[in-house]
Amino acid sequence: MKKVAVIMGSDSDLPALRPCFETLMALSIPYEAHVYSAHRTPAEAAAFARAASDNGFAVIIAAAGKAAHLAGALAAQTVLPIIGIPIKSDALDGLDALLSTVQMPPGIPVAVVAIDGAKNAALLAAQMIALSDAALYDKLLVLKEDMRRQVLAKDAALKPV
Amino acid sequence: MKKVAVIMGSDSDLPALRPCFETLMALSIPYEAHVYSAHRTPAEAAAFARAASDNGFAVIIAAAGKAAHLAGALAAQTVLPIIGIPIKSDALDGLDALLSTVQMPPGIPVAVVAIDGAKNAALLAAQMIALSDAALYDKLLVLKEDMRRQVLAKDAALKPV
Amino acid sequence: MKKVAVIMGSDSDLPALRPCFETLMALSIPYEAHVYSAHRTPAEAAAFARAASDNGFAVIIAAAGKAAHLAGALAAQTVLPIIGIPIKSDALDGLDALLSTVQMPPGIPVAVVAIDGAKNAALLAAQMIALSDAALYDKLLVLKEDMRRQVLAKDAALKPV
Amino acid sequence: MKKVAVIMGSDSDLPALRPCFETLMALSIPYEAHVYSAHRTPAEAAAFARAASDNGFAVIIAAAGKAAHLAGALAAQTVLPIIGIPIKSDALDGLDALLSTVQMPPGIPVAVVAIDGAKNAALLAAQMIALSDAALYDKLLVLKEDMRRQVLAKDAALKPV
Amino acid sequence: MKKVAVIMGSDSDLPALRPCFETLMALSIPYEAHVYSAHRTPAEAAAFARAASDNGFAVIIAAAGKAAHLAGALAAQTVLPIIGIPIKSDALDGLDALLSTVQMPPGIPVAVVAIDGAKNAALLAAQMIALSDAALYDKLLVLKEDMRRQVLAKDAALKPV
Amino acid sequence: MKKVAVIMGSDSDLPALRPCFETLMALSIPYEAHVYSAHRTPAEAAAFARAASDNGFAVIIAAAGKAAHLAGALAAQTVLPIIGIPIKSDALDGLDALLSTVQMPPGIPVAVVAIDGAKNAALLAAQMIALSDAALYDKLLVLKEDMRRQVLAKDAALKPV
Amino acid sequence: MKKVAVIMGSDSDLPALRPCFETLMALSIPYEAHVYSAHRTPAEAAAFARAASDNGFAVIIAAAGKAAHLAGALAAQTVLPIIGIPIKSDALDGLDALLSTVQMPPGIPVAVVAIDGAKNAALLAAQMIALSDAALYDKLLVLKEDMRRQVLAKDAALKPV
Amino acid sequence: MKKVAVIMGSDSDLPALRPCFETLMALSIPYEAHVYSAHRTPAEAAAFARAASDNGFAVIIAAAGKAAHLAGALAAQTVLPIIGIPIKSDALDGLDALLSTVQMPPGIPVAVVAIDGAKNAALLAAQMIALSDAALYDKLLVLKEDMRRQVLAKDAALKPV
Repeated sequence: MKKVAVIMGSDSDLPALRPCFETLMALSIPYEAHVYSAHRTPAEAAAFARAASDNGFAVIIAAAGKAAHLAGALAAQTVLPIIGIPIKSDALDGLDALLSTVQMPPGIPVAVVAIDGAKNAALLAAQMIALSDAALYDKLLVLKEDMRRQVLAKDAALKPV
Repeated sequence: MKKVAVIMGSDSDLPALRPCFETLMALSIPYEAHVYSAHRTPAEAAAFARAASDNGFAVIIAAAGKAAHLAGALAAQTVLPIIGIPIKSDALDGLDALLSTVQMPPGIPVAVVAIDGAKNAALLAAQMIALSDAALYDKLLVLKEDMRRQVLAKDAALKPV
Repeated sequence: MKKVAVIMGSDSDLPALRPCFETLMALSIPYEAHVYSAHRTPAEAAAFARAASDNGFAVIIAAAGKAAHLAGALAAQTVLPIIGIPIKSDALDGLDALLSTVQMPPGIPVAVVAIDGAKNAALLAAQMIALSDAALYDKLLVLKEDMRRQVLAKDAALKPV
Repeated sequence: MKKVAVIMGSDSDLPALRPCFETLMALSIPYEAHVYSAHRTPAEAAAFARAASDNGFAVIIAAAGKAAHLAGALAAQTVLPIIGIPIKSDALDGLDALLSTVQMPPGIPVAVVAIDGAKNAALLAAQMIALSDAALYDKLLVLKEDMRRQVLAKDAALKPV
Repeated sequence: MKKVAVIMGSDSDLPALRPCFETLMALSIPYEAHVYSAHRTPAEAAAFARAASDNGFAVIIAAAGKAAHLAGALAAQTVLPIIGIPIKSDALDGLDALLSTVQMPPGIPVAVVAIDGAKNAALLAAQMIALSDAALYDKLLVLKEDMRRQVLAKDAALKPV
Repeated sequence: MKKVAVIMGSDSDLPALRPCFETLMALSIPYEAHVYSAHRTPAEAAAFARAASDNGFAVIIAAAGKAAHLAGALAAQTVLPIIGIPIKSDALDGLDALLSTVQMPPGIPVAVVAIDGAKNAALLAAQMIALSDAALYDKLLVLKEDMRRQVLAKDAALKPV
Repeated sequence: MKKVAVIMGSDSDLPALRPCFETLMALSIPYEAHVYSAHRTPAEAAAFARAASDNGFAVIIAAAGKAAHLAGALAAQTVLPIIGIPIKSDALDGLDALLSTVQMPPGIPVAVVAIDGAKNAALLAAQMIALSDAALYDKLLVLKEDMRRQVLAKDAALKPV
Repeated sequence: MKKVAVIMGSDSDLPALRPCFETLMALSIPYEAHVYSAHRTPAEAAAFARAASDNGFAVIIAAAGKAAHLAGALAAQTVLPIIGIPIKSDALDGLDALLSTVQMPPGIPVAVVAIDGAKNAALLAAQMIALSDAALYDKLLVLKEDMRRQVLAKDAALKPV
């Protein structure tokens, strides 16, 4: 199976990304994680994205905060799908990262998930890979059904007061 | 080739979606367009999404404004990737549609593009399909190179004053 | 007396809903509480709303955070009044839930209260039921007069410095 | 049948309210319209709300812009349900009216619809009255089904390009 | 000397108002503090404002959070100057109270200070009274000069690292 | 009678200030208008404010857009009351001017009215002067009563559809 | 004299940049203008910035809208000062470009001016160059004095009504 | 070497400025720090800026919160480059300081860095001085390379789960 790359702009983003790694592992999707900054290591980030397809990656997940350019900088270098996770930082409650990630100009798409939406980034990557991987597609159906059952179990156990 | 579905919450969203259709056609990606509202035709919207995989769709693009629930409502019914386009309407300059589309809870991902980002939605769908379609992947590389050349041509022709 | 349904998108919303339950109990309004997610259990949420009138419910209160679609998803299935409570979550200080709940398109109304406005959701439900329940109407008048007296008592006891 | 009151803070709000009046008429719901300002005619606004129940009103719809206090000021005087319509004005794209109308403190609920959401205000009032008016309830079901059919007709007629 | 009234919408606003009371006392300006809610005690709030001039008040300071109508509700009843203090509450970081207080419609002015700007509300009231009170005017000059000296003392003592 | 100064940061603010001048004239309040920029003519702006009291001014109204420092810059130089009018400009819908004017630090108050709230700035100045001018106070009462009658006349003439 | 580079992300930004070019010409500062997109021509943009110092540039001005990464992408490649101009586009009133340009992470500074602040970008570049160019410094003093005189002339000519 | 001035509006801004001082020291750039308030010590702030060039300063860094006028007030008095640091305070998450600092009118530029962006303010000042100081320019290149290596070292050490 092709791999997923998870790139973070700073290793301080690692805790927010934990649900992403857990979900990829739960789905047995191979992944590689890297710290590459669009601003501090632009050449390395660009080189990674340019070579990603040849290196066996199908999807790149990019997480960054503040003026979050990482996802867009990677998208500029490849036609692999890029998933952007805006990371909330000290000011502005994540709005800066969200707008910096989502408001991409025509021609260079980024697939953006919620602020700190690490789990959904992993699921979205899985959904893309599952387009040509029936076993993974079935795993996603099972996961979806599991979520449904968990909600219904919580409903059954609910004690409002 | 699998098809792309383009669902809009109202036919008033059609003009904003034109770049989406043009891009899909330029890439020779088969598509089907529908008007289904998450609120006015919830059953039809849900049924479409549930049957989308069986009906030969690979990706669903959903465009809606205001409290834009359409992309999320479709995502609730399928594990196909859903691309959400927030549409700007009369008040709040598109912020309502953006937040309603992007802030999805863990478990149900939506891949969100910019406000009125119809062209990028089409490109993102193409990138997903291209994961298992080398010819389309090459077309995307050509398109990307064309964009590069257009910018450089504009640079060469630039007369600042 | 007809019942009030209180639906929450996640059981993590339960603490924010406590004032809702307390107010319904204080007014002796029968209610039922459920965890149904617009995204994780869309069928169950829809089925509940479609059957709500037949099952003796007069009003549905729906509480959800982030891209809060729950109230709108229920409103899509019934002509009973739906009251939406936007729940504040980790990012954006509740603005995402507010806009996702309140900016409903024409045709599908939701009656929205303040962010985390659980008590007012219960009072609003009571006011609706009281339109045809004179005893409940009188209870609401008493409650309103009690609130007035409490403020005046606080005024009388006020020690500014 | 009990009446609906439609109060606007200024007669400049009248055009934005037209869909409200049209919807009430389409549903044959008797209504009365008034211009009362929470700030310029506070006594008249308060007196109207205090007497509204005795004067045969079931629901009050209040539309105002900017620091939109009208709905809250009426809610302070009655336990009838108050529906607030935030009206967009010259600055801030309606956000001021939305927050001024929706962020009511515990104890005094207002049922808020979207910015300029006049049609939904009428529908919400109808839903409340329909709780004890089966004929109106049936009309709302018909209206909802009509909306569904209109969307499906638009879908059938859709020509994307 | 005429008095200043300090009205708060809830006694939970009292801590935020402490700098207001301290400043009034430091300037020996007589004041009275009350808890009156625009929504829970509208009649008492209105009556207070209507009688304020006759009761020897020159200025009214009104502090409230969320959909903060208090200052506007008092301004509707008097031509005394009303100073509004928007109080930050749990959601939206004070933006709701600020917009609800400041965006008053033409005809009914409120003099708004910063979110939680209790000290400045007191100073502003003092400045208004000082227009016809030369001794107070001089005290304000002294206070201003004291502030200047305190900043310069801090500058002199500054140790950056 | 003491005069009101109306200072604008740019003569492009003049149209937005017209209601201010009209109101001052209607109340027969003497005024002087100036273009002084906090940034382009800081010395002149400061000198005007420092001398304002000696030159017979009671109140200064300051109107500015964008990073609107004018009101605060004048307030830094005098203990006369300063009224700030945030002026809406091309971007951000007036929010920049509002926050730049209203969020003053403790010690230097500015009395802020709504975005483009020129009429209320004049009324607020009049209310301050009326604290020691019974004739002006009575004029303000008449004006308030006129506003009330105008609203009631509009109510009487209202034809909703 | 060293040159200023003015880079725009799209030639549609050209009209907004006119005041920048006019100001540079008025100050006789040599400049070069280019269209380079951080996303569509990342290699060319990076190469330009890396070589800028060697090619005789002292300062780079970068203008871009939406998820405006251009200034940051250039800053990543050079230690020359980069001035960022956020350009207002169709949605969000320039807030997206502002936050994307200004919220740079520690280590990679961008000097940001106002939304569409093209003239100030040119002046800021001039101020930087003037640090080692006394003639240009004097020109800036003259320009500043001219601005002062223009404001005072407008003040002298002001006819408020 | 010419000096950098670091002016803060209040000594409570000192902790947020620490990375600024550390960076200046690391680069051996002489600096002077002062507490001058645009509002509480306007004369001292203005005098400092007017004399800054003569006193051997090349660049002024100004840090302030809320209605942050300090950078603009200094810029009004000099043609030296002014760098503004918006400081986050209790309400509005730094948005007030950002807009008050960045939205400067044409003619008076301020070079704005991120909210609490103290380190970048120092680097930006260094970049300006380095335009005519080759040794400092080389130090900045080394620092940039160090940052790159640190990111790559973190990447090499990364353990995602």
